[in-house]
Amino acid sequence: MSDRRRLRLFVDLPLEPGSAVVLHDDQAHYVVHVMRQAVGNEVLLFNGRDGEWLAGIAAVSKKACRLEVKAQFKPQAPDADVWLAFAPIKKARIDMVIEKATELGASVLWPVFTQHTNAERINLDRLRATAVEAAEQCERLTVPEVREAITFEKFVTAWPTDRCLFVLDETGKGRPLSTVVVETASRPCGFLVGPEGGFAQSELDALAQLPFVTRVGLGPRILRAETAALAALVCWQSLAGDWK
Amino acid sequence: MSDRRRLRLFVDLPLEPGSAVVLHDDQAHYVVHVMRQAVGNEVLLFNGRDGEWLAGIAAVSKKACRLEVKAQFKPQAPDADVWLAFAPIKKARIDMVIEKATELGASVLWPVFTQHTNAERINLDRLRATAVEAAEQCERLTVPEVREAITFEKFVTAWPTDRCLFVLDETGKGRPLSTVVVETASRPCGFLVGPEGGFAQSELDALAQLPFVTRVGLGPRILRAETAALAALVCWQSLAGDWK
Repeated sequence: MSDRRRLRLFVDLPLEPGSAVVLHDDQAHYVVHVMRQAVGNEVLLFNGRDGEWLAGIAAVSKKACRLEVKAQFKPQAPDADVWLAFAPIKKARIDMVIEKATELGASVLWPVFTQHTNAERINLDRLRATAVEAAEQCERLTVPEVREAITFEKFVTAWPTDRCLFVLDETGKGRPLSTVVVETASRPCGFLVGPEGGFAQSELDALAQLPFVTRVGLGPRILRAETAALAALVCWQSLAGDWK
Repeated sequence: MSDRRRLRLFVDLPLEPGSAVVLHDDQAHYVVHVMRQAVGNEVLLFNGRDGEWLAGIAAVSKKACRLEVKAQFKPQAPDADVWLAFAPIKKARIDMVIEKATELGASVLWPVFTQHTNAERINLDRLRATAVEAAEQCERLTVPEVREAITFEKFVTAWPTDRCLFVLDETGKGRPLSTVVVETASRPCGFLVGPEGGFAQSELDALAQLPFVTRVGLGPRILRAETAALAALVCWQSLAGDWK
């Protein structure tokens, strides 16, 4: 348990033995003042590509904190290849989607403005910060890519045609998610979750034209959008991902 | 979709053709003022035992609202038999557990105070109201039973010995959840989720003595307590419950 308690930070810098990492502003404040770390303490660093490294706090000044990278603690491992596209929902619930999807190992998070989407705008910086924080906490070695929001029309042409797209269907007409996941376990894939108001008929028609789309169902109850998003990722990880 | 938009209310009263249901106080206020329903409008009612019924608003007064039950809309169906016991966590996150576990079909929700539990007290009324609201929204025909909180010591003796207890284990030593769920698919079961600080060693030792306990794992990342709770229910519903 002790390693779990050690502070864990994402830094977008090369990590190798002896390299110096200087934290500034918010991150330095968090380490020194919020988490009360001092010179001599050790933290864990990861950058999404070089694994996880042990680093010692070498110096602390008013607005910065210098770390010295010591040794690799964990090698980089490949991420599960599952994407999550979702219609933005209101603040607390979209933060929850980002946090939980990060914990659940999604590699790409992609807001999609559909016709019935109720949220007006997206604070991408906040969503990215939420993803970083969740990755730090859950011991992931990567931070999911949070993409710029896109309209539904652009989304359907931007989606890679060789990646399965599982559309969460609350009408009860989709195939059971677990069945579909098992059938396509070895292929790259992703999920699309609509807004609380559901997809527009024209959107459902457009999706039906796409050869890489499968409509999937999540049981008899009507799940909230964020519950559906997380349920899809759980189901995928437990049957086709890294929980096996 | 139109039926989905119809207001849906839980009432703890008998439902049969022609019976009258009088709503008071908060519930009447919600129907008349928040949802702006008027005499002549129809709503759906359920009581957890008689299925779902169509009812018409017959009269509205300052503090009450009288409904007349018309016809059954859906028969009662048996609930999935899965329980969730969990160490209480802080307010927003425990509300999320109750809401999501209701959507995900848990039949019993049971707060358990373990040694490392950080929350001081439970507002049972609020949790029960959250469960009712979630059941109304997700089209469940029942409301999960939210039990009085119990200490860990009492919990292990109160748990029915013929019900599998899957303890979520973040140490990596548990068996994969999907494997365990498939093996025990036909048996009554439940999950126990510890607090953010994990179980105490003495608690793990006590659990290890119990023949109905299996430790299960949820992959390589460290999930927050509420994520683990929801992931367990999703996995169970998709492999052994009513999502198949």
